[in-house]
Amino acid sequence: MKLTIYLAGQIHDDWREDVKEKANKRELPLEFVGPQTNHERSDNVGEDIIGKQPGNYYKDDAASAINNLRTQVLMQKADLVIALFGEKYKQWNTAMDVSTALALNKPTIIIRPESLIHPLKELSNKANVTVETIDQALDVIAYIYE
Amino acid sequence: MKLTIYLAGQIHDDWREDVKEKANKRELPLEFVGPQTNHERSDNVGEDIIGKQPGNYYKDDAASAINNLRTQVLMQKADLVIALFGEKYKQWNTAMDVSTALALNKPTIIIRPESLIHPLKELSNKANVTVETIDQALDVIAYIYE
Amino acid sequence: MKLTIYLAGQIHDDWREDVKEKANKRELPLEFVGPQTNHERSDNVGEDIIGKQPGNYYKDDAASAINNLRTQVLMQKADLVIALFGEKYKQWNTAMDVSTALALNKPTIIIRPESLIHPLKELSNKANVTVETIDQALDVIAYIYE
Amino acid sequence: MKLTIYLAGQIHDDWREDVKEKANKRELPLEFVGPQTNHERSDNVGEDIIGKQPGNYYKDDAASAINNLRTQVLMQKADLVIALFGEKYKQWNTAMDVSTALALNKPTIIIRPESLIHPLKELSNKANVTVETIDQALDVIAYIYE
Amino acid sequence: MKLTIYLAGQIHDDWREDVKEKANKRELPLEFVGPQTNHERSDNVGEDIIGKQPGNYYKDDAASAINNLRTQVLMQKADLVIALFGEKYKQWNTAMDVSTALALNKPTIIIRPESLIHPLKELSNKANVTVETIDQALDVIAYIYE
Amino acid sequence: MKLTIYLAGQIHDDWREDVKEKANKRELPLEFVGPQTNHERSDNVGEDIIGKQPGNYYKDDAASAINNLRTQVLMQKADLVIALFGEKYKQWNTAMDVSTALALNKPTIIIRPESLIHPLKELSNKANVTVETIDQALDVIAYIYE
Amino acid sequence: MKLTIYLAGQIHDDWREDVKEKANKRELPLEFVGPQTNHERSDNVGEDIIGKQPGNYYKDDAASAINNLRTQVLMQKADLVIALFGEKYKQWNTAMDVSTALALNKPTIIIRPESLIHPLKELSNKANVTVETIDQALDVIAYIYE
Amino acid sequence: MKLTIYLAGQIHDDWREDVKEKANKRELPLEFVGPQTNHERSDNVGEDIIGKQPGNYYKDDAASAINNLRTQVLMQKADLVIALFGEKYKQWNTAMDVSTALALNKPTIIIRPESLIHPLKELSNKANVTVETIDQALDVIAYIYE
Repeated sequence: MKLTIYLAGQIHDDWREDVKEKANKRELPLEFVGPQTNHERSDNVGEDIIGKQPGNYYKDDAASAINNLRTQVLMQKADLVIALFGEKYKQWNTAMDVSTALALNKPTIIIRPESLIHPLKELSNKANVTVETIDQALDVIAYIYE
Repeated sequence: MKLTIYLAGQIHDDWREDVKEKANKRELPLEFVGPQTNHERSDNVGEDIIGKQPGNYYKDDAASAINNLRTQVLMQKADLVIALFGEKYKQWNTAMDVSTALALNKPTIIIRPESLIHPLKELSNKANVTVETIDQALDVIAYIYE
Repeated sequence: MKLTIYLAGQIHDDWREDVKEKANKRELPLEFVGPQTNHERSDNVGEDIIGKQPGNYYKDDAASAINNLRTQVLMQKADLVIALFGEKYKQWNTAMDVSTALALNKPTIIIRPESLIHPLKELSNKANVTVETIDQALDVIAYIYE
Repeated sequence: MKLTIYLAGQIHDDWREDVKEKANKRELPLEFVGPQTNHERSDNVGEDIIGKQPGNYYKDDAASAINNLRTQVLMQKADLVIALFGEKYKQWNTAMDVSTALALNKPTIIIRPESLIHPLKELSNKANVTVETIDQALDVIAYIYE
Repeated sequence: MKLTIYLAGQIHDDWREDVKEKANKRELPLEFVGPQTNHERSDNVGEDIIGKQPGNYYKDDAASAINNLRTQVLMQKADLVIALFGEKYKQWNTAMDVSTALALNKPTIIIRPESLIHPLKELSNKANVTVETIDQALDVIAYIYE
Repeated sequence: MKLTIYLAGQIHDDWREDVKEKANKRELPLEFVGPQTNHERSDNVGEDIIGKQPGNYYKDDAASAINNLRTQVLMQKADLVIALFGEKYKQWNTAMDVSTALALNKPTIIIRPESLIHPLKELSNKANVTVETIDQALDVIAYIYE
Repeated sequence: MKLTIYLAGQIHDDWREDVKEKANKRELPLEFVGPQTNHERSDNVGEDIIGKQPGNYYKDDAASAINNLRTQVLMQKADLVIALFGEKYKQWNTAMDVSTALALNKPTIIIRPESLIHPLKELSNKANVTVETIDQALDVIAYIYE
Repeated sequence: MKLTIYLAGQIHDDWREDVKEKANKRELPLEFVGPQTNHERSDNVGEDIIGKQPGNYYKDDAASAINNLRTQVLMQKADLVIALFGEKYKQWNTAMDVSTALALNKPTIIIRPESLIHPLKELSNKANVTVETIDQALDVIAYIYE
């Protein structure tokens, strides 16, 4: 049984590659999808496609419309969502993706460092499982196949 | 036609009182509901009710379960959600409440300062309307009654 | 049993007043809601509330966000939708409101002149009932109370 | 990951062929579905199958029932909807298809010329993304695969 | 706690009056709604409102559109459905109303004579409760208030 | 694009074989599912599996539970429902299956003889398309592939 | 803001009276609904209304159909569910009511003694809040009104 | 047509192996999924993955979060649920799984010994079919393929 997993979360480092490699080593039959991880492309995609906008607000709105469409298409394909929160950045998108996933009845795992226990407590309580490392998240998924 | 409005957002100042007063002055037939705004009570409610927990993680989880139940009951009663993001704090709960409201098909207005345009762009694109001040949010609601 | 009725359709003449008067004369216990019928206000509401926009596209988008929020709040309160199509104007909003109402399981009556039978045929086939005059629409609603 | 795309919109020129060719050139793994594009067949299908009807209204209603069934079957198979509005024709069907797609939670892209910004503003505000050309719509879809 | 009850079933005798009288005697706080029980009016309502149709099929379709709208409005208001099947008539509408009610999650009671056990067995198995008399149906409803 | 079609309706003759043969000849990529068509087996399946019941009511209820489970599994797999009503039998199951299919958003075609226009008018008005012959129903399905 | 609360759980002692009295003392604006608490009546209601059944299985099935209808009507009216598990009895109905409530998006509080932590762990993890005493459950509800 | 079946119920003996073998012998095209059947692993999985917890309540809660995620992923993949209740153990999880399955519109078969007729009567009345042996459950599934 193959599962498709949406990897929500910040796009400032290559944690998604780490997930994929580790899943590969465990030989789990998983397909991963997720947001655009080229940060500059993600920020500029509105102007790249629709053309120059009259200011930052409009540039951001044009980009986010396309990023939201991408997320909606791919999350609807997913059987499960992993969301990683790091210590930097506000990451409201990650919180948005977790909440949307839960409302769509998608099983969801949060990965967050110990330092974020308090600010993430309500979201963590709503998610199915909260862990601290990528390895633990993959342990949970591997458990489905045991 | 009376509308019930859930006021999502940080609980570190008394912006909800400001909303209520201004709505009162305009004589709009609104009922407001929202989270526990006594921050200490909100953080301690798990231990207050269920008893001493073995550490901060468990204390936070106990509190958040009760806060989430409160939010669910009141948001289901709401016809519309106003969510205010301020410059301080991570406010993941606010992002969670907005996304949940949108998934439940509740019309939602975001209030956020200009400085948060970029980090909130995806959430703002998903919400019905985004404004910068409480007065503008009430202008939008008043418009429903025109 | 009181029913709330959303009156979708063009805002270029005062057909809604006609509906209300005729319903009043029949003493039907109906409450009517609908879009902003002051055309200028409807077009300008985005700039009125959020401020000057950098061009017509942005002005229109700001206005339509607020008009859509208004429609969503009021249509969710409605038990039934009446949508009037006239011979002038493109009235895509009316088609949008009818389709949204049907998707939300709201019983829907279309009023349209004979000349629009052909271009409206798919929408008319999806709606519950299609008639040609306001009186006929009220006949249908009065029939619910017989 | 293969995506199925419903191409809503007018059937008076061969814009759908243009979409397919351009998607082919980009080697995107897309399958396209859409309405009957033979206009005469679309208008006559009711009488073609069910037999002569007693007038144009009945002929139109018989045809639209079958066209609506076709749309429902194919749109339920789609992962994404592209809707093209042109300057001619009223195209209420297109507005109906967009609204139905959005109510079914299908990500939706509108293509419309600059001249239609104003009359389509509410629909455009509701859709995920609005662009002006077929190439831009395919840019958006290609972005999902980046 | 007041309950609204939709009375589905044939309209060839006055069984609904019987239900209302008996409910009155028991002083149950019930409000009853249901289809048009004037058979002639029900059959003619399409032509009465929309005008002469070109044959029986079209007359019937016009009437049924309006009867279906009435049923949809009133059933959405109902907390519970009672459906009575008698020995005469095909009563496909009653089967349709029961199935729709069950799909809408409305608790449903079927009343049917012993002679219809076999032909109604699948519908009866799907309904919440099946009884043989109006008194038994009211016993079930009275039990909710015990 | 392969479609799965549930064939609802009476099981007293072999009309389903007729549908399959005719679909085969047209080389339509259809898979057909439907109820148990061995009438005796269908009536006895409850006692066949669960054992002797204390009377006809209980025998019928045991059989219908299993028949309903079968229908639910197979209808959930279907993209489209064809329901045939004949002149004999009460066929409440067919009416039940059509209504359930429509509530599940499954496109539905009714086949019924002219003589049943009047008693089936409400159901027919709710279904997507109503025709009189198996050939017409297959014409409608073939149209989806044009 | 008045809330309606469904009290699920065993009917072998008068814990519901305890809840009501304590809620009264706190002057909380709550309305309580729940199952038939007269155990004998609950077990016999099938035979009481429908008549003598041919054995215990059939007697039980007739009673449970009516009890399930009662639960469905009242739980649909509820804003919140409290479910009490005691040390005696299997209480599968209580587990069924909690799961149904959660699937219907009703906020749910479980009350269970410490001795049941282990067997109830999955259900407790799914519920919003789990406490050990009636007073704690009312503390949670009172918190909604703070 | 392949069906995926979730096997809910106690994990204290190897009844699932029995189901699989018997299905194999009948050559039914079924795929089986279900909970972790290694009891110790199931109870410890929370601490195994997340680390030592401060007591039994917390150990149980950590394990159940992961078990619930597993159940949610696999039950969403299932076309049908078989739930076996035995005479030992409280098996609230099984009752929870049945209720969740029914709320998700999954056809469900209960297997329970005669001795449990009374305590399981409400759950049994809600399920599609209740039988006493594994063979009978497979008879019901085989019937779908007849």
